[in-house]
Amino acid sequence: MPKTGSGNFFEDYRLGQVIDHATPRTLQGAERALYHALYPARHALHSSDEFARASGLHASPLDDLITFHTVFGKSVPDISLNAIANLGYAEGRFHVPVWPGDTLRGRSEIIGLKQNSNGKSGVVYVRTEGVNQHGTVVLDYIRWVMVRKRDADAPAPETHVPEPSPVVPPDTLFIPEGLDFSHYDFDLAGEPHRWSDYQVGEVIDHVDGVTLSEAEHMMATRLWQNTAKVHFDATAREDGKRLIYGGHIISLARALSFNGLANAQIIAGINAGAHANPAFAGDTVRAWSEVLDKAETAAPGVGALRLRLVATKGGAAGTLKGEDGRYPPDILLDLDYWALVPE
Amino acid sequence: MPKTGSGNFFEDYRLGQVIDHATPRTLQGAERALYHALYPARHALHSSDEFARASGLHASPLDDLITFHTVFGKSVPDISLNAIANLGYAEGRFHVPVWPGDTLRGRSEIIGLKQNSNGKSGVVYVRTEGVNQHGTVVLDYIRWVMVRKRDADAPAPETHVPEPSPVVPPDTLFIPEGLDFSHYDFDLAGEPHRWSDYQVGEVIDHVDGVTLSEAEHMMATRLWQNTAKVHFDATAREDGKRLIYGGHIISLARALSFNGLANAQIIAGINAGAHANPAFAGDTVRAWSEVLDKAETAAPGVGALRLRLVATKGGAAGTLKGEDGRYPPDILLDLDYWALVPE
Amino acid sequence: MPKTGSGNFFEDYRLGQVIDHATPRTLQGAERALYHALYPARHALHSSDEFARASGLHASPLDDLITFHTVFGKSVPDISLNAIANLGYAEGRFHVPVWPGDTLRGRSEIIGLKQNSNGKSGVVYVRTEGVNQHGTVVLDYIRWVMVRKRDADAPAPETHVPEPSPVVPPDTLFIPEGLDFSHYDFDLAGEPHRWSDYQVGEVIDHVDGVTLSEAEHMMATRLWQNTAKVHFDATAREDGKRLIYGGHIISLARALSFNGLANAQIIAGINAGAHANPAFAGDTVRAWSEVLDKAETAAPGVGALRLRLVATKGGAAGTLKGEDGRYPPDILLDLDYWALVPE
Repeated sequence: MPKTGSGNFFEDYRLGQVIDHATPRTLQGAERALYHALYPARHALHSSDEFARASGLHASPLDDLITFHTVFGKSVPDISLNAIANLGYAEGRFHVPVWPGDTLRGRSEIIGLKQNSNGKSGVVYVRTEGVNQHGTVVLDYIRWVMVRKRDADAPAPETHVPEPSPVVPPDTLFIPEGLDFSHYDFDLAGEPHRWSDYQVGEVIDHVDGVTLSEAEHMMATRLWQNTAKVHFDATAREDGKRLIYGGHIISLARALSFNGLANAQIIAGINAGAHANPAFAGDTVRAWSEVLDKAETAAPGVGALRLRLVATKGGAAGTLKGEDGRYPPDILLDLDYWALVPE
Repeated sequence: MPKTGSGNFFEDYRLGQVIDHATPRTLQGAERALYHALYPARHALHSSDEFARASGLHASPLDDLITFHTVFGKSVPDISLNAIANLGYAEGRFHVPVWPGDTLRGRSEIIGLKQNSNGKSGVVYVRTEGVNQHGTVVLDYIRWVMVRKRDADAPAPETHVPEPSPVVPPDTLFIPEGLDFSHYDFDLAGEPHRWSDYQVGEVIDHVDGVTLSEAEHMMATRLWQNTAKVHFDATAREDGKRLIYGGHIISLARALSFNGLANAQIIAGINAGAHANPAFAGDTVRAWSEVLDKAETAAPGVGALRLRLVATKGGAAGTLKGEDGRYPPDILLDLDYWALVPE
Repeated sequence: MPKTGSGNFFEDYRLGQVIDHATPRTLQGAERALYHALYPARHALHSSDEFARASGLHASPLDDLITFHTVFGKSVPDISLNAIANLGYAEGRFHVPVWPGDTLRGRSEIIGLKQNSNGKSGVVYVRTEGVNQHGTVVLDYIRWVMVRKRDADAPAPETHVPEPSPVVPPDTLFIPEGLDFSHYDFDLAGEPHRWSDYQVGEVIDHVDGVTLSEAEHMMATRLWQNTAKVHFDATAREDGKRLIYGGHIISLARALSFNGLANAQIIAGINAGAHANPAFAGDTVRAWSEVLDKAETAAPGVGALRLRLVATKGGAAGTLKGEDGRYPPDILLDLDYWALVPE
C-alpha cells in the first residue's frame, strides 16, 4: 500500500459523504501576534483584551479570519489538493468566538457534484464546519471547487447542484454572547463612524497599499496548515511563480479596510466570495468597500453592515466589472460579508 | 463625511493639544518570540524567565524596545503619517516594565510647533507616553518630526520650540522594582564584562552583520501596528524602494550590540537619537558603541552606562561624522541611551 | 581587554573541558506557532493539545526539533563560530519533553580532538546536553565539527577520537512518561499507516516541495539564537549567498515527511546525520525516507521506526550516493533517527 497520499479526485466524492479532516489544531495568543505581524490588522476588539472586556467579552477573541483560515486549511488535503479553481463561498456563519487555547477540527459534507462537460473535471460543493474541543460548531460555510478527475473515463456521479442562499439573512447571524457596544469608545477604536453613518451604496476607498512578498504569504499559509503545493513550490507552475493563497488576500484586504471601517469589529457572516484573479509576490494590493445593506441586531448597541470588500492591484475604487460583466485582471477579490459595528 | 482618514498635517496641530491614540494593544509572550525571530536578540534577562527571577523580577519582562515600538506605533497615525522626517528623540524614560498580558495605549501632547521658512512644512514636537491597563505610565519620550502642510497658505501657528534636556539625568532613571544584580551569573549572560570594566570613551565594534530583507522589516513594523505606507507600499516612492522603519534599525543594532555589551540588560533611558540615513532591503547592517558616561544607581549591584549606539552599512567603528560635521551616507543610526548593567 | 568575542578556535579546546553555554531561553507556545509558520508541520501530537491528551500527555509538548535547535543554538557561540563544517551527529536522545514555559540551557563537554594534517584546522568532538529549569537533561547528542585554528603554529593537542555508537539501541530510547498510543485516532492524525504497515527497506517519497526564502531561514535560525554569521550576512561569503542553517533543512524535511509518515509523531533518537551539501534561498527542497529498522517499546501501543530522512533539491527518491560512494550535489541532508509511531 503506497504510504503517500495524492488527495481526492472528482470521481472519489459521493453525495452525502462526510469527511473528518485531519490535524486538529490548538490556537493560542501567538497566532494573534503572528496575524498582526503578517497583516496590518488594527481592529481594537482583536488587538486589546481591555477593549474586548469593555465590549462585554471576557478577553479578545481570535480574529474571525484566523478561525476561517484554520478551518479552511483543515479541509484542503481532503477537498482541494487537486483543485483547478476555488469557485465560491456562501452561507458562512461564525457561531461562537474562538479563544486562545481552543482546539479546532474540521469536517466537510459533500452537498453537490456536477461533472464538467469536458469530462476531465467537475465541481464539488461542500459544507465545511469547524468544531472546537467542546464539540461546538464555531464556523460553517459552503464552498464549491473545480476538481480534476484522476481518470477522465471514470463514470460521472449523479449530478446534484445545491442552491446556496445568496445572502445570510441577518436575523440568523450569531452574535458573540455578551457582546455589548453601548459603551463603545470610538477614540480608542480609531474612527468616529457608527452604524448610522454608513449609507447603502456608499463606496469607501481604503487608500493604503501593501506590496506582497514570498516569505510572508508562505508563512501565513503554513500557519493555517494549508498544504496546497502551488503556494510553496516555485517549480509547480511553468512560470516559476508561487500562487498566493486566496485567503491571504482576504486577510490583507480586511486589514486594509480598517481605514474607513475601523469599527467593523467582527465578521459575522460570509455571503459570497470570488477570487477573481491570482496574486503573486511583487503585486501591490489595495482595497475598497461598498455598503450593500444594513440590519439591526438584538445585541445592545450592535448593528450589522453588509459589505462588499474588493482587493485590487490597480484600478479605481468602485469599479468592479467591465462592460462584459467580467472582473478585469486587476481585481483580486470580491467578498460579500456581514460585519458587526457599534450603532 | 469621508470615512477614510489621511492623517494630520502641520496646520492641524495646536500647542498643548492632547491626542489619545487609537488601537490599544495587549502584548504577550508571543511578541517576545517574534522579537527573537526578527532580531538576533540574546540579552539573558529578556530571554529567560529563570534569569529574570535570579535578578529579582518575577518573570522576564518584554524587551524595552518592544514597549518603545508599540507606543511609537500607536502615535504614527496621529503624528507622523504625513511626516517628511523623524528628526529626534529626547527625555525618554522607561518607567515600569511591561509584562506579557499587559495592554498598552498611547497619548501625545503637542509641546512645540515651528513652521519652516518655506511655508510648506513645519516641525511638531510631541511628548508621547505609553500607559498600561492600570493607568501607569510605562514610557514617555519627546520626539520631533517634520510634517507636511496640507495647504501652504494655511496660517502658521505661533512658534514655540521646547528645549529638551540633552541627557536624562541618571538619578531620574527608573529602575524596575526589585531589580538586583548582586548575584548576577556572567557565564549564563554570555560575557564577563561588568560596569567597572567599561571606560568612558571606549569604542566597541560589535563585529556581526545582518543583511536586511523586505519580509522581515515589514513583519516587524506591522507587529507594532505602525502603518506608515512608505514601509509597505513599493509604489509609494519613485524608486520603488520600501523605506525601512527606523525602529527596525534600532532593534537590530541593539541586538547586534550583545557582542561586547551582553550585560547591558535593560534600556532605562533614551537621551537622543537620529536616523541619519535611510535603510533598504539588501543593506548589510553592522553596529558599534561608544561609552559616553557612567553612573551608579540605588539598586543593588546595578550600574548605568550611557552608550552611543551606531548602526552603519559601511565604514569603521568609531567614525561618526565627516569633517563637515555631518553623518556620512553609511551611518544609519546614532542613538544615545542609558543601559543598566551589573556592577 | 577587548569586549567583543571572536569565538573559540581549535587550539582553545582541551579534552574533558566542560563549557556552560550562555543565554538560557524560556520557550513558550509562541515558538510552536512560529514553527508552524516556518515549516509545513502537521504532526497531530505537536499541533493539538487535545490529541496529546488522548495520547496520555497533559498537553502538546514542543516539537522535538524545537528542543534540538534551541540546545544546538546555545552551543554555536562556544563550539562552531569558527567552524568550517559540521561533520556529524551521533547518540542523540530526547530524555523528557519540553513544555511551554520551560527554560533551557546548554552545556558541552569536549570528548575528542584531532588536528588535521594541514595544521590549519582540526576536528572537535562534543557531547552537548540541554537542561531544563529543574536541572533535568532534556536532550543530549554528540556532534563533531571541523574548526579553524587561530594560529597554524599553535601546538596540536593530543589526539583523541571517540567512537560514537552507529545507532542508539532502541531499548535505551526514552519514551515520554505516560505516552499511550493504544487509543490512537488515525483519522485525526491524517493517515492510516501503523507501525506494522512499515517494512524495513521501504522507501517513501514525500512528494511535496518547498522553495526556500531568505527571510524564512533567517527568522528560523534567529529564533534558536543561532548566531553564526554566514546565515545572516550576505557579505560573509564571496558569492554573496547566505548559507542556510542545516537545522532549517532538517525541520523542513521532517515536516514534509508528514505525507507518508504522519504517524511518526515523536523523534526519540538521532543516530547519525550529515549535511551533505549547502542549501541557499531559491532552492526547492523535497524529501524522502527509508525505513532502516523497527523495534518495539515498553509503552502501550508505541513502536519505534528507524528512519533515514533525506532532503534533496533534485534527484529521485531512494538515490542517495553515486557510484563513487559520495553524495551527489543535490542531496542536502541524510539524517538517521528513531521515531515513535502507533502500533
